[in-house]
Amino acid sequence: MAGTDGTQSPIAGGPVIILVGPQLGENIGMVARAMLNNGLTELRLVKPRDGWPNPAAEASAAGAIEVLEKARVFETTAEAIADLNHIFATTARTRDMTKRVAVPRRAAQEMRALDQAGQKIGILFGPEKAGLHNDDVVLSDTVISVPLNPAFSSLNLAQAVLLVAYEWFQQGTEVPDQELVLGGSELAPKAELVNFYERLESALIENGFLWPPEKRPNMIRNLRNIFQRAMLTQQEVNTLHGVVKSLRHGPRKQGGDDSGKSKDT
Amino acid sequence: MAGTDGTQSPIAGGPVIILVGPQLGENIGMVARAMLNNGLTELRLVKPRDGWPNPAAEASAAGAIEVLEKARVFETTAEAIADLNHIFATTARTRDMTKRVAVPRRAAQEMRALDQAGQKIGILFGPEKAGLHNDDVVLSDTVISVPLNPAFSSLNLAQAVLLVAYEWFQQGTEVPDQELVLGGSELAPKAELVNFYERLESALIENGFLWPPEKRPNMIRNLRNIFQRAMLTQQEVNTLHGVVKSLRHGPRKQGGDDSGKSKDT
Repeated sequence: MAGTDGTQSPIAGGPVIILVGPQLGENIGMVARAMLNNGLTELRLVKPRDGWPNPAAEASAAGAIEVLEKARVFETTAEAIADLNHIFATTARTRDMTKRVAVPRRAAQEMRALDQAGQKIGILFGPEKAGLHNDDVVLSDTVISVPLNPAFSSLNLAQAVLLVAYEWFQQGTEVPDQELVLGGSELAPKAELVNFYERLESALIENGFLWPPEKRPNMIRNLRNIFQRAMLTQQEVNTLHGVVKSLRHGPRKQGGDDSGKSKDT
Repeated sequence: MAGTDGTQSPIAGGPVIILVGPQLGENIGMVARAMLNNGLTELRLVKPRDGWPNPAAEASAAGAIEVLEKARVFETTAEAIADLNHIFATTARTRDMTKRVAVPRRAAQEMRALDQAGQKIGILFGPEKAGLHNDDVVLSDTVISVPLNPAFSSLNLAQAVLLVAYEWFQQGTEVPDQELVLGGSELAPKAELVNFYERLESALIENGFLWPPEKRPNMIRNLRNIFQRAMLTQQEVNTLHGVVKSLRHGPRKQGGDDSGKSKDT
C-alpha cells in the first residue's frame, strides 16, 4: 500500500524504538520502515550483531533511510535508555518476574499520556531468535505483550515494531473512523430524493408492479429504503432518473429527442 | 516473537482473506503467517501471477502452511466473492468513486457484528505494486484505508493483511488490557504492608532521618507512597524486611544469628 505524500512535513517526537542485539541488517531496515509509516523516527541499536552501519539495513530501509542515518548505537541497554523516563519492553515470553503487562492498545494510550506530560519514552525489542533477556526486561516499567492466536504466535521483529508503532499512531491520528467519500458530488437533498421516488413509484403503479393497492404503502417504503441506504448523491439521482426513463421508453431514436414523439424516417 | 502453544486447538471462522493478482510467492506465504497469527485460516487467490501451488509461498509460510493447503484459487474476483455477503476492500489510493471508507479498527468492529449475525465476510487486497483495480473496489461494501504517516505510507502486502487481521483478532480476544503478572507470589495484605512501613519508619526515626517531628507525617506518607505504587507481593515485603535489617545491622557474623547479639569468637 503506497500513499506517500512528499509535500507533508515529517512528524516529530514520539517513543524511541530500541533494538537490543538485532541480528539481520534486513530486519533493521524493515524496522525503520515500520517506524516511519507510523511517524516514529528515533531508533537506537544496542550491540547490533553485524556492526553499524550495515548496507543490508540500508538496502531494505529504502525510502525510510533517514531513520537509519539518525540511528544511535550503544554498548549496553542501560546506556541506550539512560536519558529516558519510561520504558516498555515488548516480549512474547512469560517471565518469572512480577511486572505490569499491557496489550499494545493500552500501552499506546499510556504512551500518549506520558508524551503529553513531557516524559521520554522508549520501547525495547529483543534479538530475533531469543527475545529480550530478563535483565533487559527488568529495566522496563511495563511489558507489552501482543495477544495473538495461542495456536500460532509468531511475529518477526519488524512486524512486532509495526503493531506497537501502529497503535501509537492510531491514537494520535485525526482520520475519522469512517466516512462517506463522495467522489465528486454532494448528497442529494431530500426534495430530490422524494421527486425521484415519486416518479419511480408513479411509473410502477402505471405498469402494475405496485399492486394491489392495500400492499402499496409497504412496498413503497421497502423500495424507498433500498435507495435510502445507498445515501445517493445528486449525480446518482440524476443517473437513476435516466435509468428509469431508459427502462420505460426503450432506446432513443436516431437524431430523436426524449419526448417519445415519433419522426418521419 | 514466538509464543506458540501447540496444544491449543485452532480458532475457526472469521473473514476470508482474498488476494487479487498476488505477485510474489514469498508474500503469499507471509500473508498466511499474518493470518494465522490472528486466527484467520481461509485464504482465496485470484489469478496468482506465478500460478499455484507455489513453492516460494510454501517456504515462507513455514508453520502457517495449513493456510496455503486450504487456499482456493479463482479466475476472477467476482467468482472469489460469490458466496460472501459483505466485502471490505483494503486500499491506499483514494478513488474517484463514492464509497464508505473506514479505518481498520472501525472495519473490524463491523466485521465482528456481521460475523455475529452470521454474515460471511471477505477482505480484498490487491497486487503488490498496483493495488486493487477500481472494478474490484466497486464490488466492495466498505473500503478499509489504514491511516499512516502522510509523509511515508508504504506497507507491504503481508503487513497490510497483518494490521487488518490484528484489528479483527483484538476485538475478539479476552486478554485483559493490562494486568499485574505476579511471578509466583500474592499481593501482600495491607496488614503486612503496614507492619513493614512501621518497622521501617521506627528505624528511620531512631536513626534521625525522619526529622523534624513536624515534617514527619508528610515524609512518612511520601515514603509509603513509593512502596504503595510498587504494589508489593508478600515475597517482596519479606525481601524488604531483610534489606532493612541488613542495612541496619551490617553483615551477619560467621555462624551467628540475626538477633544482633555478639558472640565470643
